[in-house]
Amino acid sequence: MDTSQITEIVKKVIRQQEQNETMKRTQRLQDMTLDVAMTVARGVEERARDMGVKAVVAVTNRGANPVLVHCMDDSFIASYDVAMGKAYTVVALKMPTIELKSLAQPGGSLYGIQNTNSGRIVIFGGGEPLMSGGCLLGGLGVSGGTEEEDTALAAYGRQLFERLSV
Amino acid sequence: MDTSQITEIVKKVIRQQEQNETMKRTQRLQDMTLDVAMTVARGVEERARDMGVKAVVAVTNRGANPVLVHCMDDSFIASYDVAMGKAYTVVALKMPTIELKSLAQPGGSLYGIQNTNSGRIVIFGGGEPLMSGGCLLGGLGVSGGTEEEDTALAAYGRQLFERLSV
Amino acid sequence: MDTSQITEIVKKVIRQQEQNETMKRTQRLQDMTLDVAMTVARGVEERARDMGVKAVVAVTNRGANPVLVHCMDDSFIASYDVAMGKAYTVVALKMPTIELKSLAQPGGSLYGIQNTNSGRIVIFGGGEPLMSGGCLLGGLGVSGGTEEEDTALAAYGRQLFERLSV
Amino acid sequence: MDTSQITEIVKKVIRQQEQNETMKRTQRLQDMTLDVAMTVARGVEERARDMGVKAVVAVTNRGANPVLVHCMDDSFIASYDVAMGKAYTVVALKMPTIELKSLAQPGGSLYGIQNTNSGRIVIFGGGEPLMSGGCLLGGLGVSGGTEEEDTALAAYGRQLFERLSV
Repeated sequence: MDTSQITEIVKKVIRQQEQNETMKRTQRLQDMTLDVAMTVARGVEERARDMGVKAVVAVTNRGANPVLVHCMDDSFIASYDVAMGKAYTVVALKMPTIELKSLAQPGGSLYGIQNTNSGRIVIFGGGEPLMSGGCLLGGLGVSGGTEEEDTALAAYGRQLFERLSV
Repeated sequence: MDTSQITEIVKKVIRQQEQNETMKRTQRLQDMTLDVAMTVARGVEERARDMGVKAVVAVTNRGANPVLVHCMDDSFIASYDVAMGKAYTVVALKMPTIELKSLAQPGGSLYGIQNTNSGRIVIFGGGEPLMSGGCLLGGLGVSGGTEEEDTALAAYGRQLFERLSV
Repeated sequence: MDTSQITEIVKKVIRQQEQNETMKRTQRLQDMTLDVAMTVARGVEERARDMGVKAVVAVTNRGANPVLVHCMDDSFIASYDVAMGKAYTVVALKMPTIELKSLAQPGGSLYGIQNTNSGRIVIFGGGEPLMSGGCLLGGLGVSGGTEEEDTALAAYGRQLFERLSV
Repeated sequence: MDTSQITEIVKKVIRQQEQNETMKRTQRLQDMTLDVAMTVARGVEERARDMGVKAVVAVTNRGANPVLVHCMDDSFIASYDVAMGKAYTVVALKMPTIELKSLAQPGGSLYGIQNTNSGRIVIFGGGEPLMSGGCLLGGLGVSGGTEEEDTALAAYGRQLFERLSV
C-alpha cells in the first residue's frame, strides 16, 4: 500500500463522515442550505466528468432564489443562464422541466410559457424539483450536455438530495 | 339558531349590501376600480378553492396597467407573471387569451406575437377582457390550474364582473 | 338608531371577528399568507384614504416573491413598480428602505446599490420588513404619497402586521 | 488524543494535499478553474463565518463570465446580484470596486458608469481582480456584510488566490 492509496482511503472515510454530518443537519432541513447544495452539485459534477459532460450546475431554494452555481471548466457560457433558468423553473412551476416540455409544445396547454417570467422558464430537460417529506425545498438545474445527459444528471442529483434528506 | 348561524346570516346580508353598494358605484364605472377588482378577485379565489386550485388572480384597467394581484397560498411562483401577462394581453389585444392561442401557433396569423411587448403577451387560456356596456374596462388573468381550470375561472370572473357592472 | 348605524355596528363586529380568525391562523404563520397580506393592505388603504393619499400597496413573502398588490383608484401608474420594488428591497436587504436611503447616498457605503438587482432596489422611504418572532416573513411596500406619507403608511402597516402575528 | 482530534488533523493534512494539488494545476493556470474558484470561495466563507458575516461569494473568469456563486445560509437575497456584479465589474474595468467607488461619485470621471452594462457595474467595496503573473485571470465579488467587511473578505480571497497561483 503506497501513500496515494492510503490518501485515497482516508479521503473516502472523511467524505463519508462529511456526508453523515450533512445528513444530520439535513434532517432538520426546512429550506435548501449551501452545504447540501454543494454536496449535490459535487456529486453531479463527478458524474458529469465520468460521462464526459462539462456541465453548469445550479441550485435554488424554496423561494426560487439561487443558492449555488458551479460552471465546470470549459462549459458553455450560455449554460449559466440555462441552468439557472431550469433551477428557477422547477420551483416556480413545481415540476421537472422534462414534464413541462410536452405542455409547452405548439398546440400544448402551456405553449408560450417560455416567454413569460422574463424568459427564465426553460422548457427542456435538465431541471428537477428537490423534495423532502412531501415539501418542495428547492430546485436543481443542469446544462451542458445533450438533453438526455442533462436530464439524467439532474435526476441523479435529485436522488442524491433525497438520500441526504431522508 | 346558534351564534355561528346568526353570524353566517349577518355576514351574508352584509356581503349583499356591499355588493349593492359596489354595483351602484359601478354603474358610473368608466374604468376598473380597486373595489370592483377585489370583489371579482375574491369571487374567483373562492371558486378556485372549491376546485382545489391555488390561483394567482390579476386585474388590469383600460390602460392595461395592473389594479390588483392576489397570490393564493402556495400558488406557483411563475403564476404571478403569467396571470399579470394574461390580464395585460386581453386589454392589449382585446380578446380572451384562449382565442389568441390558435392565432399564435406556428403558421398562425399572429405567430411570434408572444415575443413582442417585452414578453408580456400570454398565448394560452385564462385571460378574459372585462367589458361593460360595450366598453373594454379592463382585463382578468388567472393562473395556477390546468389551462381548462384557468379558462373556466377567468370566465367565471368575467361573469361576476358583468353582473356587477350592469 | 337607524339602519345605517346598525349596519355600521354589525360591520365592526364582523370585522373584529375576521381579525380574530386571522390572528388565530397567524399564530402558526411561517410565511406570509394572502389573508394576512390582505388584512394589512386594507388597513393601510383605509389609513391612506384618511390621509388623502392614493397609494399602491405591495406585500412580498420571505422569498421576496409578491403575494399581493393593490392599486388604489387614480394612483400613479409608476407607483406599481415602486411599491413592488420597496416590498422586494426590504426582504432582499432585510431593512426598511428609509434606513437604506442614507447608505445609498453619494459617498455612502452602498451608493450604487439602486442599480443592482435589475433596478428593483428602492432607496427611499415606504418599505418595511414584516417580522414575527424575530423571523423575517415578508415585506410591505407603499408608494403614492410624499416620502413622509409613504414611510408613515408602511410603518402603520408594519404595526398592523405585528399585532396580527403576536 | 481522541477521535475528533485525529479527524481534525487528518482533515488538515488532506486539505493541505488538496491545496498542493490545486497549486500544481494552477501553475499552468491560464484562466479561472472551478477547482480554484471553489478553494478561494470556501476560504472566504470560513473567514466570513468567523466574522459573523453571511456572505454571497462570486467568482468570474477572464471573460467576466461567472464560474461559481455560493450563497451562505440566510444571506441577503439582494447579495446574489451584488456579488455577481462585483465579480463582473473587477474584470470588466480591471480594478477593485473600492477604487471605482471614488471615480463614480457625482463629479467623478466615471460618474454614471453604474448605469451602463445593464446595471452590472457595482461601485462600492467588495470586488477584487484576481491576478497571476501580471495577468488578469478573473474576479472575486463578496456581498453580505458592511462595505468594510466585504472589502476585507474580498482582499482576503485575493490573497488566497495569489498564494495558490504562485
